[in-house]
Amino acid sequence: MNFTLTQEYLDQFSEAVQNKDNNFITTQTTALHPADISAILDELETDDCHYILGLLPEQVRADIISDLDTDVRADFLKTYQPIEVAEILDYTDSDDAADILNELPIKMREEVIAHVEAPQNVMELLHYDEDCAGGLMAKEFVKANINWTVVECIEEIRRQTENVEKIYSIYVVDDNDKLLGRVGIKKLVLNPRNTKIADIYEPDIIFVYSYQDEEEVASMMQKYDLEAIPVVNVNKKLLGRITVDDILDVITEQAEQNLQTISGISEDVEEDDSVWLLSRARLPWLLIGMVGGMLGAKFIGLFEGQLIAVPAMAFFIPLITATGGNVGIQSSTLVVQALADTGGLQESFWRRLLKSFLVALINGFVIGVCVLGANILLTGGEITLSLVVAFALFCVVIIASIMGTVTPLILNQFKVNPAVASGPFITTANDLLGLAIYFSVAKLLFSLAA
Amino acid sequence: MNFTLTQEYLDQFSEAVQNKDNNFITTQTTALHPADISAILDELETDDCHYILGLLPEQVRADIISDLDTDVRADFLKTYQPIEVAEILDYTDSDDAADILNELPIKMREEVIAHVEAPQNVMELLHYDEDCAGGLMAKEFVKANINWTVVECIEEIRRQTENVEKIYSIYVVDDNDKLLGRVGIKKLVLNPRNTKIADIYEPDIIFVYSYQDEEEVASMMQKYDLEAIPVVNVNKKLLGRITVDDILDVITEQAEQNLQTISGISEDVEEDDSVWLLSRARLPWLLIGMVGGMLGAKFIGLFEGQLIAVPAMAFFIPLITATGGNVGIQSSTLVVQALADTGGLQESFWRRLLKSFLVALINGFVIGVCVLGANILLTGGEITLSLVVAFALFCVVIIASIMGTVTPLILNQFKVNPAVASGPFITTANDLLGLAIYFSVAKLLFSLAA
Repeated sequence: MNFTLTQEYLDQFSEAVQNKDNNFITTQTTALHPADISAILDELETDDCHYILGLLPEQVRADIISDLDTDVRADFLKTYQPIEVAEILDYTDSDDAADILNELPIKMREEVIAHVEAPQNVMELLHYDEDCAGGLMAKEFVKANINWTVVECIEEIRRQTENVEKIYSIYVVDDNDKLLGRVGIKKLVLNPRNTKIADIYEPDIIFVYSYQDEEEVASMMQKYDLEAIPVVNVNKKLLGRITVDDILDVITEQAEQNLQTISGISEDVEEDDSVWLLSRARLPWLLIGMVGGMLGAKFIGLFEGQLIAVPAMAFFIPLITATGGNVGIQSSTLVVQALADTGGLQESFWRRLLKSFLVALINGFVIGVCVLGANILLTGGEITLSLVVAFALFCVVIIASIMGTVTPLILNQFKVNPAVASGPFITTANDLLGLAIYFSVAKLLFSLAA
Repeated sequence: MNFTLTQEYLDQFSEAVQNKDNNFITTQTTALHPADISAILDELETDDCHYILGLLPEQVRADIISDLDTDVRADFLKTYQPIEVAEILDYTDSDDAADILNELPIKMREEVIAHVEAPQNVMELLHYDEDCAGGLMAKEFVKANINWTVVECIEEIRRQTENVEKIYSIYVVDDNDKLLGRVGIKKLVLNPRNTKIADIYEPDIIFVYSYQDEEEVASMMQKYDLEAIPVVNVNKKLLGRITVDDILDVITEQAEQNLQTISGISEDVEEDDSVWLLSRARLPWLLIGMVGGMLGAKFIGLFEGQLIAVPAMAFFIPLITATGGNVGIQSSTLVVQALADTGGLQESFWRRLLKSFLVALINGFVIGVCVLGANILLTGGEITLSLVVAFALFCVVIIASIMGTVTPLILNQFKVNPAVASGPFITTANDLLGLAIYFSVAKLLFSLAA
């Protein structure tokens, strides 16, 4: 049952499609999980995917299409007629159906909706922003009126069994659909069939409002170890349910996005995207870094006299800029990480700054002393220059640390993703700051020494 | 029910502990979810935690202790007697109990085990490495013999109801405990009580072996949308079950670790750790960066003659090193990300290198031309130096890109976390490489121009 995709297997599939060997395709796909078929289709040409999907049962086809990579799916659905897409959506969970519709061009979207069997559910979900709880929830869940008994509840599960694949809890509501609590499915199994729901339901239920941010939802489900969470409107009317598999995707995407932001990649790309797309995603930050570098060049140019007087000053430029960059990224990453952790108590701005300052004091001192020692030991003389470098490094560590701490906090205040402050932005800013410190310290100490 | 921790509330708690206001503490904690109490305790002093926990029911106390941050818990359990810890573990799930025991000093661990009521389960789990499937699984799950009926299965659930909080699926085994398949709990609800398990179970079940890596388990559960996965030994004997809440923790920890590794933080720290711990976690990479910077200084020193002849060469040092660093991190992040994605087909080494090279060609060309244009426009003359800088940048982008692609692949081959290759390591290496290219290009072009 455990499946690994190999090139050989993929080639066999391509060949089977070429030869219209329907027997091979149906035998193989019947034995596979839809997620595995989906992984195969991600690697094949659009026409081949179309052919293979045509041979599969409707439910499996719908599951696979829900599971495809977004970019593969967008290209792929263009090869279908609106009425065919509507047939697929009839077998798809409402949250995935809404996502698929949102990916279609507007005209096609309207045509598809016109053909969907029960469009109300999906239409309702189209209204929500895709990164809030409303955009994540599905309309497929089981609810029970507080006045029901266990047997009525079981009958409702039977009615919904086609629609709701996984039931974790039954949500208990009043006559106005207001959420009152939940009954775990274990309780339904263990209690006599005539037990009243009112007697066994748990009124303490954790829920989210439809407007809450997806990351907030993710951290709540993680904190309370939930496999599903109900979504309500401002009047606590039950609207839908978010399951943990969607939350896993939210967390993974968020982590990838943070990593890419910090690395200066400005679009969501993967290694197997086209060369052109990859170049485009990488250029913006490289160009910003370039502008920073040009400014740095202009800046050093102001101190040309000093450089001519002491050419060895140029030797330590990379040391200064690299240290500033490293310290800045360390500081900002810790802040970004702390901001993402909504569980605990957040430290105050001033406490953060103080701590960052103290850490910088220790690290700046250690590095300054090491560099001073190494310089004197290795180069022999040049005490003044060694002092300049060591003291400049000490200052750079402190300033870069403060910059790295303050920038993400400010961005966060203005609702900009604080991770933007890490990576190339902080590096570029710290390069310039580091140079300013280095040459100012040099000017000061050399004039003192003279 | 939805809870946010505030400083005021925390102060009220501290005060209540001071005044031994047990009434306040029990009223408040009864209304709170254990995860919320745990968040409060994370912020309080060890003695206060001890006092509050003493007032709580045993099950709640055990849930909270399972939920505490690892470092808080380690300090905390030292204040308990071994027999008290054993009592807590009697109420804890086996996977958490094993984790807690592993955190204790060896002597205390043995003393605790001597007092645990049913030590077999926990003892068995202690053998597994903490980052493999065996280290994640719990012994609490419900299994049914293939020869049973639905009613026998329900009786088993009733027997286990204290131990197994969340059921999801019943695992079906033969007389030798070999895993045969599963029955969803929904099927138990919907089928008559005398139905044979053999008639309703699903033999296609996704499982993991106890030796599989936690990240492999996480990606499987994510791919197949599972809320729990059974763990078997090499003979397919059912050993335990991993639930999705543990996988959420694995994914989050992994993401944090990647971010920290890329940012050059060498220990798992959080913003609210001590200044000393934070400094220690940040120093190693800063020192490595420092050594790199000193080597850079030595290296530039070799070209002192050139610098004296053309002092303006020094102006562009930060541009060269920053670009090399930025390109290197971008490349390595994309590779690290691709290596982490085990779902699709992995590209071959040579294909990766070729793509990285083509992307670098485009980006290097764009940046080179921009810098050349800007330099000529802004500085007027100095054509040779402008050409040197532009051509050196072009080469730096290509070489840094290849370095950034190859290094994580090599580390991965040697089973080292490829994320180490991003961040300070690649930056430092690329600083040196960039300088070497810059000064070599300069030597070549200046001698051609002369």
